[in-house]
Amino acid sequence: MKTLIVYAHPEPKSLNGSLKDLAVSTLEAAGHTVQVSDLYAMNWKAVVDATDFGADASSRLNVALASGRAFDAGTLTADVHAEQQKLLWADTIIFQFPMWWYTMPAILKGWVDRVFSYHFAYGVGEHSDTKYGERFGEGTLVGRKALLSVTAGGPESHYAARGINGPIDDLLFPIQHGILYYPGIEVLPPFVLYGTDRMTDENYPAVAEAWKQRLLTLESTEPVAYRRQNFGDYEIPSLHLKEGLEPAGRTGFGLHTRG
Amino acid sequence: MKTLIVYAHPEPKSLNGSLKDLAVSTLEAAGHTVQVSDLYAMNWKAVVDATDFGADASSRLNVALASGRAFDAGTLTADVHAEQQKLLWADTIIFQFPMWWYTMPAILKGWVDRVFSYHFAYGVGEHSDTKYGERFGEGTLVGRKALLSVTAGGPESHYAARGINGPIDDLLFPIQHGILYYPGIEVLPPFVLYGTDRMTDENYPAVAEAWKQRLLTLESTEPVAYRRQNFGDYEIPSLHLKEGLEPAGRTGFGLHTRG
Repeated sequence: MKTLIVYAHPEPKSLNGSLKDLAVSTLEAAGHTVQVSDLYAMNWKAVVDATDFGADASSRLNVALASGRAFDAGTLTADVHAEQQKLLWADTIIFQFPMWWYTMPAILKGWVDRVFSYHFAYGVGEHSDTKYGERFGEGTLVGRKALLSVTAGGPESHYAARGINGPIDDLLFPIQHGILYYPGIEVLPPFVLYGTDRMTDENYPAVAEAWKQRLLTLESTEPVAYRRQNFGDYEIPSLHLKEGLEPAGRTGFGLHTRG
Repeated sequence: MKTLIVYAHPEPKSLNGSLKDLAVSTLEAAGHTVQVSDLYAMNWKAVVDATDFGADASSRLNVALASGRAFDAGTLTADVHAEQQKLLWADTIIFQFPMWWYTMPAILKGWVDRVFSYHFAYGVGEHSDTKYGERFGEGTLVGRKALLSVTAGGPESHYAARGINGPIDDLLFPIQHGILYYPGIEVLPPFVLYGTDRMTDENYPAVAEAWKQRLLTLESTEPVAYRRQNFGDYEIPSLHLKEGLEPAGRTGFGLHTRG
């Protein structure tokens, strides 16, 4: 495998830092090639603005159109271009981050906002009354797999089906389906550690062992069975899921997973 | 009303910029007081790091504990302190932003990550085997209301109950429930504009009129009926919703809304 690890935590000695280090050593020992985008160490620019596109202050900035023009012309900034090249190089992408306020830290959201440019990650393919792009199962990054490895401060029960935070699969859906599956990446079931606020050093060996097992079985792990947009499951042009395709009682985000 | 508008768009002449300007003029004309946090104009620092807490590089940074210590000692940075004071001053908070990858732009996530510090927005109240904090209906910001005003590029049907993006209420749940209701803010139904990728200047007068009507009826608008954590609806300590409280067939995020 050629694995890109996108890592977002400010503290190298954190649990997230340890899990990132363990991923590198485990995958390399198994003969895989690894690149790491350590966003804090890179001092990653998190905020999209006019300087990304060399726009002068007098013109009206449309982020989508400006990023698409820059992508087409090969004039995206060097930092963004390098990340796009890493994504094209990789066959597997691991995101290692803490859940902050039920989603990714700002620095990682800023990586998405800037790297997933128009014409690279969205605005790909025909957009008309009969087709709304090549996305959700098609797109620039098709053929790749991704895995979220996340830490959550609260206990697992809070993220269960009836838990107060909402089910973890639903909390991660906007990332897994909306960001990763959108440009064609298949998504493996996430590796989630709960209760990390109260975790001690004594808990780490078991955690590390579980993480190693996930890493060493990535190639045989089945992705989440999200439905492809353009292969018959959705009405055109509404992109409503056709009636009757889902198991009885299934609603919400769960509709967009088969079976 | 004392209204804080937190605004996150890089282009003053954008639709988001116009909606922000219209909110200011409409509310002021109606006799209300308005403050605006224009995150791009403020060059808001989006990324939490050790410099926020004057931590020296040799110590291991725990963001929660460091932000709580700084909050308690009154040593949070001036930019973060000012935003916390605005939140305490306001009775109504409007967030104006574009949906980028199904959630808020990085600069706004970074406002949350830094301003919603430990002991201010979380880690408030007793945390024991019989209570898990004062949150979801209690907390520092109780008595305030918030409204998301968001623009979405895609058409409304994509965000419907069976739409491919998932229902808009579910996409906004991690923000509305997980970020805003968590420290006690009541959440008004969002103002969502769809299809903004194809919107023209001709569409603007109707949009502006609809937005003005929402703004002028904020005080009589009923908040979303999220369930309070500590008033009998949840099992302790699992924080599972008690069986039988929900309408038949309700699942997922919807469980945490009454009625």
